[in-house]
Amino acid sequence: MSNDLGNVYYKNYLHLDKILGAQEPISSQTDNPAHDELLFIIVHQAYELWFKQIIFELDSVKRIFADPPVDDKQMGTIIARLDRILTIQSLLLDQIDVIETMTPLDFLEFRDLLVPASGFQSIQFKEIEIRLGVKRENRIPADREFMKSRLAVEDQEHLSRVEQQPSLVELLNDWLSRMPFLEIGEFSFWRHYEKAVERMLQTDKKIIQQNPTLSEREKEYQIDELIATQSKFDTLFDQDKFEELKTAGKFRLSHRSFLAALFINLYRNEPMLFLPFRLLTLLLEIDESFTRWRSRHALMVQRMLGSKIGTGGSSGHEYLSQTTRQNRVFMDLYNLATFLIPRSDLPELPREIRRSLGFHFSGQNANSSGESSA
Amino acid sequence: MSNDLGNVYYKNYLHLDKILGAQEPISSQTDNPAHDELLFIIVHQAYELWFKQIIFELDSVKRIFADPPVDDKQMGTIIARLDRILTIQSLLLDQIDVIETMTPLDFLEFRDLLVPASGFQSIQFKEIEIRLGVKRENRIPADREFMKSRLAVEDQEHLSRVEQQPSLVELLNDWLSRMPFLEIGEFSFWRHYEKAVERMLQTDKKIIQQNPTLSEREKEYQIDELIATQSKFDTLFDQDKFEELKTAGKFRLSHRSFLAALFINLYRNEPMLFLPFRLLTLLLEIDESFTRWRSRHALMVQRMLGSKIGTGGSSGHEYLSQTTRQNRVFMDLYNLATFLIPRSDLPELPREIRRSLGFHFSGQNANSSGESSA
Amino acid sequence: MSNDLGNVYYKNYLHLDKILGAQEPISSQTDNPAHDELLFIIVHQAYELWFKQIIFELDSVKRIFADPPVDDKQMGTIIARLDRILTIQSLLLDQIDVIETMTPLDFLEFRDLLVPASGFQSIQFKEIEIRLGVKRENRIPADREFMKSRLAVEDQEHLSRVEQQPSLVELLNDWLSRMPFLEIGEFSFWRHYEKAVERMLQTDKKIIQQNPTLSEREKEYQIDELIATQSKFDTLFDQDKFEELKTAGKFRLSHRSFLAALFINLYRNEPMLFLPFRLLTLLLEIDESFTRWRSRHALMVQRMLGSKIGTGGSSGHEYLSQTTRQNRVFMDLYNLATFLIPRSDLPELPREIRRSLGFHFSGQNANSSGESSA
Amino acid sequence: MSNDLGNVYYKNYLHLDKILGAQEPISSQTDNPAHDELLFIIVHQAYELWFKQIIFELDSVKRIFADPPVDDKQMGTIIARLDRILTIQSLLLDQIDVIETMTPLDFLEFRDLLVPASGFQSIQFKEIEIRLGVKRENRIPADREFMKSRLAVEDQEHLSRVEQQPSLVELLNDWLSRMPFLEIGEFSFWRHYEKAVERMLQTDKKIIQQNPTLSEREKEYQIDELIATQSKFDTLFDQDKFEELKTAGKFRLSHRSFLAALFINLYRNEPMLFLPFRLLTLLLEIDESFTRWRSRHALMVQRMLGSKIGTGGSSGHEYLSQTTRQNRVFMDLYNLATFLIPRSDLPELPREIRRSLGFHFSGQNANSSGESSA
Repeated sequence: MSNDLGNVYYKNYLHLDKILGAQEPISSQTDNPAHDELLFIIVHQAYELWFKQIIFELDSVKRIFADPPVDDKQMGTIIARLDRILTIQSLLLDQIDVIETMTPLDFLEFRDLLVPASGFQSIQFKEIEIRLGVKRENRIPADREFMKSRLAVEDQEHLSRVEQQPSLVELLNDWLSRMPFLEIGEFSFWRHYEKAVERMLQTDKKIIQQNPTLSEREKEYQIDELIATQSKFDTLFDQDKFEELKTAGKFRLSHRSFLAALFINLYRNEPMLFLPFRLLTLLLEIDESFTRWRSRHALMVQRMLGSKIGTGGSSGHEYLSQTTRQNRVFMDLYNLATFLIPRSDLPELPREIRRSLGFHFSGQNANSSGESSA
Repeated sequence: MSNDLGNVYYKNYLHLDKILGAQEPISSQTDNPAHDELLFIIVHQAYELWFKQIIFELDSVKRIFADPPVDDKQMGTIIARLDRILTIQSLLLDQIDVIETMTPLDFLEFRDLLVPASGFQSIQFKEIEIRLGVKRENRIPADREFMKSRLAVEDQEHLSRVEQQPSLVELLNDWLSRMPFLEIGEFSFWRHYEKAVERMLQTDKKIIQQNPTLSEREKEYQIDELIATQSKFDTLFDQDKFEELKTAGKFRLSHRSFLAALFINLYRNEPMLFLPFRLLTLLLEIDESFTRWRSRHALMVQRMLGSKIGTGGSSGHEYLSQTTRQNRVFMDLYNLATFLIPRSDLPELPREIRRSLGFHFSGQNANSSGESSA
Repeated sequence: MSNDLGNVYYKNYLHLDKILGAQEPISSQTDNPAHDELLFIIVHQAYELWFKQIIFELDSVKRIFADPPVDDKQMGTIIARLDRILTIQSLLLDQIDVIETMTPLDFLEFRDLLVPASGFQSIQFKEIEIRLGVKRENRIPADREFMKSRLAVEDQEHLSRVEQQPSLVELLNDWLSRMPFLEIGEFSFWRHYEKAVERMLQTDKKIIQQNPTLSEREKEYQIDELIATQSKFDTLFDQDKFEELKTAGKFRLSHRSFLAALFINLYRNEPMLFLPFRLLTLLLEIDESFTRWRSRHALMVQRMLGSKIGTGGSSGHEYLSQTTRQNRVFMDLYNLATFLIPRSDLPELPREIRRSLGFHFSGQNANSSGESSA
Repeated sequence: MSNDLGNVYYKNYLHLDKILGAQEPISSQTDNPAHDELLFIIVHQAYELWFKQIIFELDSVKRIFADPPVDDKQMGTIIARLDRILTIQSLLLDQIDVIETMTPLDFLEFRDLLVPASGFQSIQFKEIEIRLGVKRENRIPADREFMKSRLAVEDQEHLSRVEQQPSLVELLNDWLSRMPFLEIGEFSFWRHYEKAVERMLQTDKKIIQQNPTLSEREKEYQIDELIATQSKFDTLFDQDKFEELKTAGKFRLSHRSFLAALFINLYRNEPMLFLPFRLLTLLLEIDESFTRWRSRHALMVQRMLGSKIGTGGSSGHEYLSQTTRQNRVFMDLYNLATFLIPRSDLPELPREIRRSLGFHFSGQNANSSGESSA
């Protein structure tokens, strides 16, 4: 009896012998095999598969950015791949639900056998952090210490090499700094913007002062707020102040790049800025999704161990809580919202710039349809 | 004691008196109040709130399409709003999990009191179907009957009026039919495409015939497949055949519009087609999400009632299963996949067309950066 | 420089060399590497990891059932494991979102290289189906044919062996058939139930006939419904009719087991039936989740291929749609809802039986607290 | 033309006139209607609907606990209702995705019109917090201040009244303190447990000291950990120390109740403890889900406003981040994990106690089946 399976057979193509032959619970070698150890292994292996895919997509995106100019077709590709990363991240979150089907008592059955291995030893996860832009010097001390004492030398060296490549946040910074729309010919956008902000703040002040329903204390409070807002905008318009704050770690982007990102947010409806806006949104969402993952992860560890020490000798919950705050990379994109002003207050772009930001179609049918989008 | 709440107070702004005062379980008026009836009411009210939002977004999208030309900024708006609908739809799906926290026995406690009311009497849901493009004549008989015998006269008349407006699928058809790229100057895209398809099929045929590992039966089978594929492409290239199938209900789009949609799919990497491609993808996904909702809804009803008759006198599970198949609107967008050919086989677009599909930036900084996307 | 990694190191424990070394895109060996093939491989590998875990849990559950009596501690274990399977299934659904980040055109880049491999060749998925209770003779013809012609001989033989073991639905049937509560001493539950049903139907009839707001046509319609319901209950109370329908494939459970399942549903508030009720609910939900997965899978294939033939020579969408209907295993648990009657109509259980269904605590503190649950 | 809609008609039953007539965007009364304000209103209204349902379920659960003894049927009811709350909470999380379809710039279009209204004015959300167990004195200062200055007097008074009722965490504490299993006859569980812990720690110590692969520094480190663990257990076994920490706000449960909760976790496989264990797990998960919601909410506000002040005059992001940490109620249930020991080290329960924790079935069929669970 024979059948024709052709050249490609499902299980060979996927190397299922390797994949399904890679689960060896330690507790199976003892007198007391723990049922839940297989789940523990498989969930971590699934994580590592997805980490590999995320790294693959990040690298392809970084390669495009590293070889400017980035043309528009490539921008579409970048966006599709970041969107894929985001979709995978929602799996990473959901997988925590699967881990949590294991109770703390079930985990105890094999936990001691794993000491001192630890999930923090995932090289691929560190690689993702580095590729996005987490810097060694910004990591919390426990994290820095761990990367020295608890990783194999070859893994340490590998991570050091990865750290020497430009990160995504740096490549983004370069790309933004090349944006050509900020000053064109006679038109200086930021002078207009500054005036619009000033007008907006003046109007707000008058509204507060003339509001008969406000008590004096209320008025004072609201005026204080206005002054705080004013001072934030001052930073925006003063390159020196900005760079000072950047040195103090308050910004990752350069002044010029930050302004470009703000411009993209403000005029995101212009066709040529549609993809750049989507890019910035995706980066923010990828950052947010890892933040959510770290924070859920911290809750899960707390639930599993209470205030016990983790298998790697770290107090896992505390460690994770701290990296949740510390390892965010695209905070600047959150901070952009501080500087948005209502559309109605936006300076109108000169006709020349508007044209350069839109589609121009000049095919023969265009006249008849009069339509530019399609 | 007084405090200054200003002019706008949360609960007034949201009219929470109305919202939170609209739950009146019928069973509360009997000797046997049913705990779960409140959930039943609230989940349906939440559905209706979201339906209102979906209708609001659909109408805004339809208004844009109904007033051509659709410029590029508007295209961005359309996409943002369809994307919002899709996000809301995923809530609609999740709400079924909430209903399912009610067991069939709990439902029985108050079910008889609701007879003959029925979820199929949701006017807003019918409106959504109609706005998308579900036609009265395509509905299953039970559905058509129900819309006559089981709706208040005013509601029937309202739905009839909605049915007279152009639906989204019709507006899409018009928009696609105006697409100017199909024949430009000397270049006739479809003649090239037809040849590419022919070449592809010829090559496939050779590969099959010369494959030494295939048995005769295998070869025959695969050649048959090729012929079936060939015949499908024939339809694509033959307007008359196509319109014939359209009359038979196999297509909703016109021949010209179907080709335009295919063109968008094939050259979606061109900047000017990025938004149109996203539009088509979103419409397909909205259709898919409603399909999933109907199909989950059918399972839920079956679980709740078995093969009992629903409160409205319909056998709910069967009804819903049938509309799952019948009320899909954007099947053409699924069928597009049938006619895609690998990128490497695609005819290259003439330089003139490519240019008209890309961004042109000519600001002063552009030269220095050499970059067109930003 | 050295550091102490202890005996267990993360990447060794997880065999990451195997896991991360098992991705070999075929297109990488051609002149035209396809970026998306890695995703395609990894998503399938993740599926297979989870399938392995599901099989592991199913087997452990089956082992417990196969060695009666099932004590209460074991029942808790069974439920925890089925709950885990359900949680994993929601990952399986979410992974489809990840696949859909690949567009049909991207898939075309490497699809031909995979012919004739096919996802239907997943042995583990077939194993899951078989373990749950899908029978060879109930499969659709294309499925049966495929299992012969398209699987390696060793895989066919493996599946045949799995088919010879008792399935979960059979083990459930045995367990239900041993349930001791149906007739105890003088009390015959089903005679009481039959009378309660009769009373309920008589009352319903009167209510219809005496309702002044109903037209004659309405009354007739509703009486017809009543008769249909009556006839369904007749089947329930008539073992011969029931077994006849079972032979015709309308039921999988025996008459006695079906009644036991109904009893559990009706008296699920009794402490001793809490776990059995949870068991039945979980089995229904596992069935439902696979149904949803097949149905989403079908939509995804349609979106990817239109009406093209799949890589394995099957028209994937159609095949999947059919198995969605055909491969459901626990339909009986859905059908139970047909036979539920309102709690108020339920015969009260004799005191002796109630006692045997509740907790009895007789510790010294119990008197003082008077509480039985804790 | 007439039709018979019966007594109950869908839209009347659901009071859709109220529900769908409660959206009045303020911006619609200006020259500049903001498209996105409707979404903003509807998403908040949907939240309030679900809050109402959560409060309804919480109250029903609290009523059962407030009227001891809680019998086993009621325990099943409690669990079903908490499970429903948890399912609704996952909707609350998903609704944030819907809000995020509104960009910061879109929000700016109408944000100023809403000042000084604020989402923090949701009375129902505060009610949920209070019902769960958030105490006024534990709230962060901004929160306490806000509840005075920014709520209508009637709402303040309402909340004060709610604060005077016993909260769920207090009712849970009472229920746990009544648990009768801790000392029964001769058997004193905790003396056994203390010894088991001692043995475990001694063994661990030996393992560390005799491990040849550990450096002296490593050994020292691990011994320090052991001592820390020892000291935590000391608290557990010393009622005075425990109550001291409770006074300092480290625990919410009394010493006796905490031990009872630990007992339930350790022996959760005993049939009689299955439901109590599920109860504790659900409370922990409800707490966790609100924690996740607050933390996502904080990210969303940061994304929408940057470091701007919220409409209610609060810096929303910072406020939310702090309540995320501060308003957790069931931290004790997380801390339980600290005190779990492996099952193999658990003292075996005396036969008498085991029996009182299991099902006893003594019906006539029981002998033949020999099965106790069904």
